[in-house]
Amino acid sequence: MNKVILLNHRPVGLPQLTDFKIIEENIPEPADGEVLLQTLYISVDPYLRGRMSDVKSYVPSFELNKPIQSLIIAKVTTSHHPDFEAGDFVAGQLPWKENQLSNGKGLSKVDPNAAPLSAYLGLLGMTGLTAQIGLTQIGKPKEGETIVVSGAAGAVGSIVGQIGKIMGCHVVGIAGTDEKVALLKSKFGFDDAINYKTTTNMADAIGKSCPNGVDIYFDNVGGEISDAVMTHLNKYARVPVCGAISLYNNTAEAKGPRLQPILVKNSVLMQGFIVSDHAKEFPEAIAQLLAWYKAGKLTYAETIVEGFENTSQTFIDLFSGKNEGKMIVKI
Amino acid sequence: MNKVILLNHRPVGLPQLTDFKIIEENIPEPADGEVLLQTLYISVDPYLRGRMSDVKSYVPSFELNKPIQSLIIAKVTTSHHPDFEAGDFVAGQLPWKENQLSNGKGLSKVDPNAAPLSAYLGLLGMTGLTAQIGLTQIGKPKEGETIVVSGAAGAVGSIVGQIGKIMGCHVVGIAGTDEKVALLKSKFGFDDAINYKTTTNMADAIGKSCPNGVDIYFDNVGGEISDAVMTHLNKYARVPVCGAISLYNNTAEAKGPRLQPILVKNSVLMQGFIVSDHAKEFPEAIAQLLAWYKAGKLTYAETIVEGFENTSQTFIDLFSGKNEGKMIVKI
Repeated sequence: MNKVILLNHRPVGLPQLTDFKIIEENIPEPADGEVLLQTLYISVDPYLRGRMSDVKSYVPSFELNKPIQSLIIAKVTTSHHPDFEAGDFVAGQLPWKENQLSNGKGLSKVDPNAAPLSAYLGLLGMTGLTAQIGLTQIGKPKEGETIVVSGAAGAVGSIVGQIGKIMGCHVVGIAGTDEKVALLKSKFGFDDAINYKTTTNMADAIGKSCPNGVDIYFDNVGGEISDAVMTHLNKYARVPVCGAISLYNNTAEAKGPRLQPILVKNSVLMQGFIVSDHAKEFPEAIAQLLAWYKAGKLTYAETIVEGFENTSQTFIDLFSGKNEGKMIVKI
Repeated sequence: MNKVILLNHRPVGLPQLTDFKIIEENIPEPADGEVLLQTLYISVDPYLRGRMSDVKSYVPSFELNKPIQSLIIAKVTTSHHPDFEAGDFVAGQLPWKENQLSNGKGLSKVDPNAAPLSAYLGLLGMTGLTAQIGLTQIGKPKEGETIVVSGAAGAVGSIVGQIGKIMGCHVVGIAGTDEKVALLKSKFGFDDAINYKTTTNMADAIGKSCPNGVDIYFDNVGGEISDAVMTHLNKYARVPVCGAISLYNNTAEAKGPRLQPILVKNSVLMQGFIVSDHAKEFPEAIAQLLAWYKAGKLTYAETIVEGFENTSQTFIDLFSGKNEGKMIVKI
């Protein structure tokens, strides 16, 4: 039998296990032009929270009683498709199923010899692309500038910081445990890191870590952490707004300091983006990430949880920061 | 004798007349290389409020007991400078004095035959440049898009709307009196306009005026008006943040809905700017504005108050919206 995870209820606030439902169905048979895929790794990502709500957006909402979908690495177990052979490994936006059919559309082959398969969900997947494109296309770092990254020990943040160092910047990360803070400095080469959960005055702490102010704030979290960073922005600062994980589960409208006076006073750019808008730049960006990885200039962290049936809980755990680096479910 | 207006106190909240002081001094004699200038028109602008506070900024604060300074049109009454003749008209960032010396630095000659002298403080001055550069360089309007302008009947807003129409956009203005709303539609060609003081649900009203959503929000005001517009932003919307007049006199930190979720969801750009950062583009922009003006495609409104001694009150009146178009003091 073949397990499938459906959206059972639309979450209100923090998602609960009961918002998801596991059902079983038969393993299907591929027809002509189809492949049968066996799921190996599932990417769980904060942005999926938005798709679970029923609000108008340009990415369509997940439907109730239909499978959740995210980036998945799978193995082709049977192929009746001319472009794939049994034994190929592929990446694609796929439903959360242990096994499934595909007509090949939207699948891209991945090479297990170039990097571990799970890296194609992180460093060499959407999160690496998000870090690379968000930082370089929107942040436009110049040597000697100061970059602050929130959610710094997360999948995107840890890569942003390393690219910032490659580009010769002073890089400061914000994370939520002492272990993450240590990891940012030891493994990822951040110049400094701040534990926002144990720091009483974040604005002061950021000021101390960024004596020349902040030129780029790569914002993964929104909320009070961002408020504190925004007060330190330099003239012409750039703020790629990648995510707002601290706000995704709010049931009431979140309020905070108005940003317009800061933007006007310092000619600041804020730019929300989703990486899928930059698909044309993917090949070049992936090639760059792979080259840095092979040269030992980029490393990555991943938190791998085993077991298909743990996928929903693993997604929920993103919001309490249980992950270091990319959060992945291994089947 | 020669009247001069000094900053007497740093304003707290809305500026008061007692924050300013008029003194008299002798009319000076120009030395070699100097001109004597007679002030004809003084520009009063919301951004001056920021310079009256003692906060760190890239534009230095005005000093206590020193003259306020803004864009002024003056006549050269005596010249000992090779580049100027008595009778020339000039524009420059100058102190609020009835008569004053200059070494010519920062003065530019203006042609009273090309346009009325006061127009060089508005349509053909910083406000016209702010509208033109903010809308075209940051807003990047495309034919058929929808532009919303706040502070629409003000100096910048009324020009933004007209340029939007020249570019083939659907243009909606927000202003604070029925007279201004009527003027926007009759004189400036806005497609629709909303009186925010008599409209109970601004978000609904904007939705009705912008059936295809908002692609560009040219923000002059900040605050609750902006909150209402931001909920209607389309994917890839651009928000040139030109000013935040509704917030300039706040004594406590202003709070409002957090913007990051909107920016992320719709890949929105917000860009604060001051026009002086774009000095390289001034000649081309002024030429374009003058060409449109001569072709009858651009008109302007100005509110002219007479009397040097009324300059401070005229500045204060900006914050209650007493002006239609550019607010100017005529000496």
